[in-house]
Formats: sequence, C-alpha cells, structure tokens
Amino acid sequence: MSRSRIRASQETSMDAAITAKPRDRIVATARGLFRKHGLRGIGVDAIAEAADTNKMTLYRHFRSKDDLVVACLRQVAEEANGLWDRLAAAHPGDAMAQLRTWLRQGGGCGGPDGRGCSITNAAIELTEQEHPARQVIAGFKRGQRDRLAQLCRDAGIKAADTLADTLILMLEGARVSRQTMGPDGLASKFVVSAESVIAAFANTQAKPAGAKAKARA
Amino acid sequence: MSRSRIRASQETSMDAAITAKPRDRIVATARGLFRKHGLRGIGVDAIAEAADTNKMTLYRHFRSKDDLVVACLRQVAEEANGLWDRLAAAHPGDAMAQLRTWLRQGGGCGGPDGRGCSITNAAIELTEQEHPARQVIAGFKRGQRDRLAQLCRDAGIKAADTLADTLILMLEGARVSRQTMGPDGLASKFVVSAESVIAAFANTQAKPAGAKAKARA
Repeated sequence: MSRSRIRASQETSMDAAITAKPRDRIVATARGLFRKHGLRGIGVDAIAEAADTNKMTLYRHFRSKDDLVVACLRQVAEEANGLWDRLAAAHPGDAMAQLRTWLRQGGGCGGPDGRGCSITNAAIELTEQEHPARQVIAGFKRGQRDRLAQLCRDAGIKAADTLADTLILMLEGARVSRQTMGPDGLASKFVVSAESVIAAFANTQAKPAGAKAKARA
Repeated sequence: MSRSRIRASQETSMDAAITAKPRDRIVATARGLFRKHGLRGIGVDAIAEAADTNKMTLYRHFRSKDDLVVACLRQVAEEANGLWDRLAAAHPGDAMAQLRTWLRQGGGCGGPDGRGCSITNAAIELTEQEHPARQVIAGFKRGQRDRLAQLCRDAGIKAADTLADTLILMLEGARVSRQTMGPDGLASKFVVSAESVIAAFANTQAKPAGAKAKARA
C-alpha cells in the first residue's frame, strides 16, 4: 500500500494526535495502522512518516517494532481496563446491571471497523511464542476474566467462575466471528445467547435451593 | 527466517508430501508454513523451495499467493467437514453422544501446536475485506454452525439454535484463548463450561413444561 494512501486512510484519532508529543503521536498512529493493516501489514517507515516524524525518532523512543507493538497493546489494555470503573459508576452497587451493560458493550465488541479485539488479534498475528507482547496479552486477558468473575459473584451467581469463563469464551468467539462471518453472523447472536446463558445459570441455581429444602424435609 | 531454518522446521505432513504431485506438495507445504509463520510471515519463494519446486511451477498452479491461500483454506475446510461423518459413524443414531464427542474434540481444538483454527486465524490476518478467502471462510463457518444446530435439534434440545450459537461462540473463544492465555488459560475451561451450558439449557427446557402444566391447571 502506498504511503500517500496510508496517510489518506488515517483514523481521526491519528489526526488529533498531530499536536501531541512525538512518542504519543507514534503510538496513536501505529495503533490505527496496526488495526487497519495488521501488525505485519505495516512497517516502521510507513508508521514514522504517517506520524509526521522519522525512523530515527521512532527508534529513539522504541528499540524495535516489537517494542512499539508492546507499547500499543499496553495502551489498548489500559483503556479497556477503564471499562470496569465506568460500569461501576453507571450502576453503583448493582452488579447485575453492570453485568448486563458489560454484555451489551460486548455486543458491539467488533468495533465500528469490525476488527474485534486488537489484543486477541495480536496473539494470532504474532506467531512467535517468545514475543515480548505475549506477557501483556496474557496478563490483560487473565485480568479481564477475573474482573468478570468478581462481577458475577457480586451479582449473587453461585457458579460465578464457570459463568465468567463461559461469557468470556463467548465474547472472544463473537469478536472473531465478526471477522469470519461478518456483522450478520454469530457476532449478532452474542447478546441473545449470553442472556440465555445467564438466565439458564440462574435457573440452575434454583435447583440446589430446592434440593436443600428437600433435605430439610 | 532463513530458508534452511524453514526447511528444518517442516511439519511431518510436509515430509510425507514430498512424493506427491507438485500442486499437492505446494498446498501441503504452504499449509504447514502458513500455520507456523502466519499467512503474512512467509512468502511464495520460501514455500516453493520448501515444497521442492520453484516459483514458476507454483505460479503455474496458482495465479497468486492469495489463490494459494484460498486453496489451502478450502482443503482445511474439507477435512474439518469430515468431522460430522466421523461423529455419526462413532455414535450412530445417538445425537447427544455425537454432541458430547464434538465437545471433547473441541477441547483439543488448539491443535498440538496451540494455533487454533487456521480458518479463523486467516480471517484475522487477512485485513482486506475483499480478499477472495473471505467467501470460503464465511461459508465454512456458516456450515459448521448449521450442522451443530441440526445435531442439537436431533438431540432433542428445544432451544437448539441458541445452544448451537452459544457452543460455537465458546469454541471459537477457546481457540483464540489458547493463543492469548496459553494452554492453562480459558481454553482449558472449554469442556467444563460447555457441559455446564448444555446442562443448564436442558434444565431451562424443563421450565416451559411446568408453565404448561400450570396453564392447564
């Protein structure tokens, strides 16, 4: 892809980044271009030029392209982690409402460009098992899962860990299905399916209560 | 990566392919190398050499690298579609047993190399929305989903479509989680979580029967 075309296709976030410091500008530009073209579909030369800087400056801030990838993923993870505070602020003390809002936000998880989760995509694109980004990716995913499990516990769901595992597996599946099947494929079924799962788990929960009553009788 | 290293790292399937016809040899070799290095991590020169042929022969069989990618994905899809016949042969007339075997096979879905589903990975790696592989990918995924929904219906599950959607979302999620979190992450929870979901859906089914009884009363 030609540099002029890359420049023309820059995201708004990149345009806004033009006034930022070189390092921030490089990260913002790289995030947009990595997302659009894949981690391997774009080189540091094109990133430096699109960020209105040069390769020397880029390498002053990042030792390698891998380092830049790690910085981008760290920023994505930080922003994504802000979700939990936003959920708590929107529905203070109501964990079930937070869970349902998480679900609805997940339904749009493909993003406006349908490219899903940049962090998951990176795990697939970076075939090297020793890539420095792997730690950031695994740490972020573990953190997300644990936060959701806590939310399920706070919502009074007994099988909170299994429900959280199930919902995260489904969300990850929806994000990649958006890319394999398009917007009308399985991604569009995520919210309905996940609601059914929550309801089904809630029903299953009712069983042990009945069993207990029976034991008492 | 050097060609000698690529050669040294060839899969067994590629070694076995050495006696095959050039076209078959190219596809077998490309499948192994694409899986190991990603669709963008390997070029046609390296593929031709590893397949013990040359670029001219490769281009006689495939107009472009994109064409070769499509041929590889078609072959992966054909092999994967054989699963349904194998399930039926293993448990003739027992759809629930077929579903449970599907589940267990899914649990190992990352493959021995942990790289998950080559077809899903391709959807993420090929950022171009108009790539000729997109049709193969979407068609395969739709087919898989429909076959699983049929199996759920045959197993007597009322909410068969929602259960199939849920299980496929979970399987896709498990395959990418194997890559984001490693073998001890969420991928290892797939079978237990999916079993819980099937059980929960079965419990939920009992509800409408109760509701009906109430209506009759």
